[in-house]
Amino acid sequence: MDPRVVENIYLLVIVTLVSVLQNVFFAQKVERECKSHHSHTSAFERVSCANRNCMDAYPTFLAVMWCAGLCLSQAPAAFAGIIYLLVRQQYFVGYLGQTSQSTPGYLFGKRIISFLFLMCIVGIFNYLLVRYYGSDYKDYVETITKAASALLLIP
Amino acid sequence: MDPRVVENIYLLVIVTLVSVLQNVFFAQKVERECKSHHSHTSAFERVSCANRNCMDAYPTFLAVMWCAGLCLSQAPAAFAGIIYLLVRQQYFVGYLGQTSQSTPGYLFGKRIISFLFLMCIVGIFNYLLVRYYGSDYKDYVETITKAASALLLIP
Amino acid sequence: MDPRVVENIYLLVIVTLVSVLQNVFFAQKVERECKSHHSHTSAFERVSCANRNCMDAYPTFLAVMWCAGLCLSQAPAAFAGIIYLLVRQQYFVGYLGQTSQSTPGYLFGKRIISFLFLMCIVGIFNYLLVRYYGSDYKDYVETITKAASALLLIP
Repeated sequence: MDPRVVENIYLLVIVTLVSVLQNVFFAQKVERECKSHHSHTSAFERVSCANRNCMDAYPTFLAVMWCAGLCLSQAPAAFAGIIYLLVRQQYFVGYLGQTSQSTPGYLFGKRIISFLFLMCIVGIFNYLLVRYYGSDYKDYVETITKAASALLLIP
Repeated sequence: MDPRVVENIYLLVIVTLVSVLQNVFFAQKVERECKSHHSHTSAFERVSCANRNCMDAYPTFLAVMWCAGLCLSQAPAAFAGIIYLLVRQQYFVGYLGQTSQSTPGYLFGKRIISFLFLMCIVGIFNYLLVRYYGSDYKDYVETITKAASALLLIP
Repeated sequence: MDPRVVENIYLLVIVTLVSVLQNVFFAQKVERECKSHHSHTSAFERVSCANRNCMDAYPTFLAVMWCAGLCLSQAPAAFAGIIYLLVRQQYFVGYLGQTSQSTPGYLFGKRIISFLFLMCIVGIFNYLLVRYYGSDYKDYVETITKAASALLLIP
């Protein structure tokens, strides 16, 4: 592949690789729990459930992040992806907590998925504007998006 | 990313976004059922099973749709994707029905996946023909594909 | 899409199609077991568990294979993908074996995922070298990668 293609996606690839590392970490947790204890214990069910919830949301996250990165710009999308991975780590660790009341819900990272979703819509809207009207707001939009992605850091 | 890339994928991105919205809708159904009732009831198991079956097939669907859109042409692939999402909605709602006899099987949308699969094969075959023989049937193939995608509407 | 894009991805698309066929094969196994026997038998749980483990790892595999193919070169990535599919088939069949002691673990194909992961890192590293120093080691790296991918055949 020529370098111009890699230039536009390498940040997304790095985030994808980090998410793969995290997946492997989750899977090893499941495997260790499965081997050390007998199955059907409470701890095994907890790890297995946390892993399954994370894996259920994984293709959605990948699809939205790559679409946002391809349609608009890759730096804010990759940044939001990193934040999502941190939230997922926190969710997974929180799921393994002691008290059964502390189990978080099925969904997590809603704000980040919404942000990436908005980026996709803005990117497609901008493309349609360029195609039918010829004015390109992409530079403004990218600047605003980069500034807005910093808002994700606010807890 | 320059607009020429977005031009070739924006319909696929739109279908992906719609599918993400549907995923979030499914996940919220699961979460609401999980919170309103206690776990391990019949309704919760039903929603959870329907959601898991849909999520199992989701990466396969995304991969086939994007390959078909990239290899051949995006309009029929996106159209088939929309039909698939309608079928999935119907499957999910049908799974939540009252009688336990009415639960549909594990697989759904076989016809649409097969259509997208055929599109991929035709696209690659066409590329190999162009490469080794130099004749380009792509225009004919695209016209036929667009006409054939209308056949998916027949129930 | 113009042929130059298809040229760089057609091997990856073929491997993706083969993996989709394998997914459909797994899903049909689950559906047949679900219909022929009543649910909650040992055989059904075994097939269902094998299928779920394979599906859990599927998005990770697809993401790593496509990243490796896009960042470095597609032939070794597609070759490693084929090997992964063979390992997955073996894992699935092994999971259905008679004795309950023979169930393999949760993870499989670690070596191939690691190889694809390394390919991604080398590709990004090479891109950064080209960008900041201007020397292109891609040809050497591709040759080495193609030779190294043959090592995956060693059991």
